[in-house]
Parts: sequence; C-alpha cells; structure tokens
Amino acid sequence: MNINAPRGTQDILPGSSEKWQFVERQLADLCRRYHYKEIRTPIFEHTELFQRGVGDSTDIVQKEMYTFEDRGGRSVTLRPEGTASVVRSYVQNKVYGLPNQPTKYFYMGPMFRYERPQQGRQRQFIQFGIEALGSDDPAIDAEVLSLALNSYRELGLQSLKLVLNSLGDKESREAHRQALIRHFDPYRDELCSDCQVRLDQNPLRVLDCKKDRDHPAMATAPSILEYLNDYSSDYFDKVKEYLDVMGIQYVIDPNLVRGLDYYNHTAFEIMSEAEGFGAITTLSGGGRYTGLVQEVGGPETSGIGFAMSIERLLMALEAEGIELPLDEGLDCYMIAMGEEADKVAVRLTDQLRGAGVQVDKDYLGKKMKGQFKTADRLNSRYVLVLGAEELENQVINVKEMASGEQKEISLDAIIDYMKEQLAGGE
Amino acid sequence: MNINAPRGTQDILPGSSEKWQFVERQLADLCRRYHYKEIRTPIFEHTELFQRGVGDSTDIVQKEMYTFEDRGGRSVTLRPEGTASVVRSYVQNKVYGLPNQPTKYFYMGPMFRYERPQQGRQRQFIQFGIEALGSDDPAIDAEVLSLALNSYRELGLQSLKLVLNSLGDKESREAHRQALIRHFDPYRDELCSDCQVRLDQNPLRVLDCKKDRDHPAMATAPSILEYLNDYSSDYFDKVKEYLDVMGIQYVIDPNLVRGLDYYNHTAFEIMSEAEGFGAITTLSGGGRYTGLVQEVGGPETSGIGFAMSIERLLMALEAEGIELPLDEGLDCYMIAMGEEADKVAVRLTDQLRGAGVQVDKDYLGKKMKGQFKTADRLNSRYVLVLGAEELENQVINVKEMASGEQKEISLDAIIDYMKEQLAGGE
Repeated sequence: MNINAPRGTQDILPGSSEKWQFVERQLADLCRRYHYKEIRTPIFEHTELFQRGVGDSTDIVQKEMYTFEDRGGRSVTLRPEGTASVVRSYVQNKVYGLPNQPTKYFYMGPMFRYERPQQGRQRQFIQFGIEALGSDDPAIDAEVLSLALNSYRELGLQSLKLVLNSLGDKESREAHRQALIRHFDPYRDELCSDCQVRLDQNPLRVLDCKKDRDHPAMATAPSILEYLNDYSSDYFDKVKEYLDVMGIQYVIDPNLVRGLDYYNHTAFEIMSEAEGFGAITTLSGGGRYTGLVQEVGGPETSGIGFAMSIERLLMALEAEGIELPLDEGLDCYMIAMGEEADKVAVRLTDQLRGAGVQVDKDYLGKKMKGQFKTADRLNSRYVLVLGAEELENQVINVKEMASGEQKEISLDAIIDYMKEQLAGGE
Repeated sequence: MNINAPRGTQDILPGSSEKWQFVERQLADLCRRYHYKEIRTPIFEHTELFQRGVGDSTDIVQKEMYTFEDRGGRSVTLRPEGTASVVRSYVQNKVYGLPNQPTKYFYMGPMFRYERPQQGRQRQFIQFGIEALGSDDPAIDAEVLSLALNSYRELGLQSLKLVLNSLGDKESREAHRQALIRHFDPYRDELCSDCQVRLDQNPLRVLDCKKDRDHPAMATAPSILEYLNDYSSDYFDKVKEYLDVMGIQYVIDPNLVRGLDYYNHTAFEIMSEAEGFGAITTLSGGGRYTGLVQEVGGPETSGIGFAMSIERLLMALEAEGIELPLDEGLDCYMIAMGEEADKVAVRLTDQLRGAGVQVDKDYLGKKMKGQFKTADRLNSRYVLVLGAEELENQVINVKEMASGEQKEISLDAIIDYMKEQLAGGE
C-alpha cells in the first residue's frame, strides 16, 4: 500500500528546490544589507503563546491550528505564523536588555495552518519575515517597507502595489471605533449575523466583511484617517515622507485593517498586479504593533514587521514570466573503462570534488555509450574519459561538450586543469 | 506570565545563527560537488509511514514520536528522521521511473524525538543527511562515506574515526543469526530480560545491550564477518578497496549493528575522538538498506545514506577549538544630524543597500556621540556622517574606523565610492 504526503503538504524536489534555495539566499542577502539577522525559533510552541500572541478570537486560533498534547501532557501547537514566536524568544532571552537596539530579526521556515488547500495556500507553507523590536521611529517603518518591496523587486518583479494605511494609536482607534458604531448602528438589522456581533466587539472588522461588502453603508463608513489624533497623523506623515524620499510609490487604503488590538499606526500589504496571478493577490502584509511584548511577559515595547509566503512569491515570478538565473548543469562527468581505470577514476572524482569541481559518474555499470548519453542528459560541460590506453599513458581525455573539443591531460595535472577551466564559469 | 519555548527546543539567535548558516552553506556546497540535490519533505507525515519505515519495534516509534490527530482525524507524526520521508517521496513521485539513476538527494531540517534533553540531544534537532537510491555499486557506498567524512573534514575537524562494518545480505545475516542463537542459548538465563526476548526476535541486538555488555559470552560471540557469503564478502572488499584508493582510513568493528531488517551490507558511524567532546561520541551514522522502498509501495530498490545532527557537528567544532570564518562586522553606519540631513541619510541608506552595501543607522534618536558608540559596538568598518555643513556642501564625511582616516565624498559619488571601498573585502 502506498503512503502519500499529508494533504496540503508538498515535496519540493530537485528541479524545484533550486528555486527555493535561490530565493532564500537572495532574501538572506537582502537582510544582511539591511542588517536584519536570522533568528530560528522552534517548530512548535506552547499553545497559550498563540492564544495570547495571535489572539483567541482569530480564525487562526479558533479553527486552523495544529494543536496536540505532547507525551508529557502539555498542549503544544505547530506555529501558524512567526511573530508570536519571535516576540516570545525576545522576552525569554531578555534581548530587550541588550545594547544595540532596536533588535532586527529575520526568519524563514515552515508554518502550519489547517485550511482548505488551494493554489498558493498549503497547510504547511514557508514564510519569510522580519521584525524590528524596540523603536517607534517612523524611519524604521519606512525601512521595513523598503525591505518588503525589495524582497520582490530584486528578483525582478514589477507588477507590485504597495497599499498603506494608518490604524493610529489607541486614542485614535477608540474615536474611530465609536464613529463606526454610530455609523452602522442604524443598519444593524441589515448586516449579517457575524457583523452584528462584530459591531459590538470589534466594529473595524465589519469593514472586512465579504457578505456585507455591497451594503450602501460601507461606502460611507467613517475612515480611520479622519480620526487620527495629532501624534498619529504626524507619525503617518513622516512614514509617507520617508517613502517619498526613497522613491517608493504607494496607495492609501483606509479600509486596510487588521483585526487585533495589538496593531497600531502603519499597516500595509503588497499585492501582485500581474495578470493571471490568481484570485488572492496579496503577497505579504505587515505593520506596527504594540502590547504584544507585554502580553508575553516583557516590558512595553513597540515593534514592526512583515511576513510573506515564499510559495506566493514563486507564483508571482511565474505570473510575470521571470526565470531565475539557476545553474542547472553539471561541471564534469567521469567515464572509466576497465577495473584499473575505474579505481583511478574513483580517486580522481574524489580529488576533483575536494578541489571544488562538481563531478558525477556512473553507478549502474553502463557501457561507454550509455554513460555519454547520461552526461549529455545531465548537461555536463566536460566529460573525462579514462580507458586502458589513457591509463597506460597516464593521461585522461577531456572533452568539452559544447565545442566537442578534446584534449589529453596528464593524470598529475588534471585536477589543476579542471579547476582552471571551470574558474571562469563560477 | 512568561511563556518559554517547549523543553528540549531552543532559539537560535544572532551570534549563533551565523554558524548554522555557514555550516549549512558549506554542506550544501559539498553536496553540489558530489551531485546530490536538495529534497524537502513535509515536517509531519502520516504516522504509518514511520511505523513501517522506521520500524514498529524501535524505541523511536514506541516511545519517542510526536504523534497526534489532525483536525480531520488522521494520525500524523512530526518526522523523527529523514530516510522514511525521502523514500516515501521517491515512491509517491515515481522518481524511480526517471532517467539519470541513481537518485541522489540531500536534506536538511528539523527532526523531532521526545527524549530526555541533554547536551547534544534536543527534542527538536536539525539533521543533515543524504540518500542515494537505485544503485548497489560498492563505489557509491564509498562515495557516501567520502561525503560523510568531508562534511566534517572540510570544516577543519581532525579527530575523527570512521567505523565500518558489513551486515551482509539476507542469506549471510540469517546464517549469522543462527550462529548467535547457538552461541548465546546456553547462557540464556544469565542475560537480562530484554536480551532473552531479543535472542528469539533479533539476536543481533543482544550485541548492543548495555546491561549485558560485560557478560563473558559477549567477547566470544560469532562475528557477522565470519558468516558473509561470497557476494557479501566481495561487496565489502570492494567498498574497502575504494576507500583505500581515496586514502580514507577506517576501523572495522563487527559489533557495529543496526536493528532493522532493512539494513544490509555497508554500515558505518563517524565518531569524534576530540577530548572533552562528551559521553556520546557518535557524530553520524549510515548504511545501505534494501526493502524500504518496497515497504512504502515502490519497486525493489537498494539505497544507501547517512544522517548527522548539525548541533553535534557544532559541538565537535567547539571541542577541537575551530573558529568558523564568520563575518560579524557591519560595512557602514550612517549618522545624520538635523531634519534635512536625516531625510538625505534615509535615501542614501536605501540606495547603498540596493547597491550591495550593508548599512545600518540609528532609530532611537541618539546624539552623535551615542551613535558613534553604537557604530563602534557593531564593529562597523565605515561611519558616514552627514551634518548641516556637509549637506550645504553636498558632501558626506566618510570615516574608516580601523585607521581613523576621514574623507569628504560628494553625495553624488558616495554610492560608487562605498561599493569600491568594500569590493576588496568581499
């Protein structure tokens, strides 16, 4: 009986894994330049972390978590996102007490949500994200936005839209909340049952409702931007000013909201505008938050971050027809004929690899012709042939496949020769 | 209330994550040269995969797995090792039917075992491993051994011991099994209760017993090597011959056994002989197997692989006092004084990063002196200062921290200038 991978998970095989490697290296280098350093947190955490850090009332916590008891009877959960774990680590390791603040992290790794699998939405997905903790300088909001956009741009993506909003501070949000209640209350009975609850608990989320989206009261709902107090308004202006200075274009959308109380000030999403990208056009989202560090047991600290799915990034590259510059060939294929030659070939193969050259050889006992065919299929740049005659003369035949050119090189010199031949191509 | 990471898991923070990155890149490059390509399988699998692929009777499956029901009621398990998943993927994706066999994979990622945490043994640990499927050429056993050893050697480790054995083929193992039963049966009552069971079920494992290790019958137990049939003996000779040809030293240990029926022929471990390495000296282990692919639903296929814990590799580096060549400094620290200068500094910072230069700046509103102190602490090679006067002259002050040398560079030229300065250091 066959056993398959669990639904909503996938194997990333050679031919595809090289793309992931390339993108991940590119993102790690981007982070290096922005001076964000890697943090790795465990795959699972105590469940209460996500109940508190993601929010008990969210869909994620209510419906989508992989939660189970470990053998010691403690409830643990496969991480559904990265921020809660990063903040937990920041508090547990007392990183807030170190010099060199703010603390700038990036992370990359699998996250887990039990959702209906569809294109670009797997139950296990790879997320890349950053968090900057310990500063509420609007310039760092702009830095995060710049890094987020360059995550895509440096790979060649162009059809991107940065959507920006401010959720203001607590005071502004409270004023807006009251205004929303005043605005929607007369239509309470016309709204869906979920929104009737939201109207009391978190009226901001009414703006997000897919069922009520065409209700006439939606279009005239009060915007958070009209309720920003001076501090919040100034903050938002500064963020926009820095974006202008960096030449980053954006669209303001006062309906870009985030459900949780933690979020304040800057909120953003990056969308793909590429044709044929699919129904869900959001590539990544992020924003500023406060209170989360305290919730997990640390001192009051403000943070900002964003996260993206690498799978969706790869989908966007495909939608824009961008080919990553992957090296898919092989440096060298080693062919030996005869028992003695075989031993020398094994030694040379090992030495070439030690010298930095990529080499493969036959392990199926194929005839010479079959081995050449394999070398061809593997797109090998060079084929090295060692037969009885070459061995007697202590040479090896080097064939450059593209030109067909052949040379005999002494066995003593072959390592250096191949290193030299391939140095130009690196 | 604080929430900590689950017991037996750890956060890898900046200052440490660079080591992991370095080692992982080194291993990925090693695999590139040996032409092993990356495969990524899911973090969890259907539980039955490990019951069949690791073995129902093993400690791993019996006691150490993180097993739970997902929200759809299916039993899933966090992978405790890599081989079963790789083989499952090989079968599910019908990779055995592709040209260019054998299939040579490497993998790197977290594995999970519920064990008592101790030094070098975490509940979540990172494993690197390779599998070569579809060839039973002894030369590929030697290739795997060479790659395994070079995983350590290329990082500078020297106190290594390669321990080698052959478990023979099925016929040889059955002959040995009978010999073991004949040998131990007279002492049955003197053996521990576990071994009395093992003697009937899997007498090979008696040799592994920690309780009975000093029983006199142990020292005189028949060796598998005396029971190898011609094919198995030839196979082992060829593996050793290839190792000799490659100049790889090894020690034969006929007591190096592996519990499962799948294992045959080549079995090996790499141990650290560094002083102060700790009680468990095994760094990695591997060997040849057959029957596993069939067990998971594929055609009869032979494979060989090995796996290592990256954490134990890092411990071995520490025990031998090897410093990895990590780049821990910062290229540039940007200091701006005044509102106008600040905006220009934000733009320049962004442009420098886009040009490949690593730059950071202050986000805490520190005074000039505090910013210089931060630059110092971050070990920044250059500090760029932009004040009102510089701005008026459209220049920026570039200070090389090591020499103390200062230069004024025009704002138009600074990007190219810094790129040039730093090009030598890459």
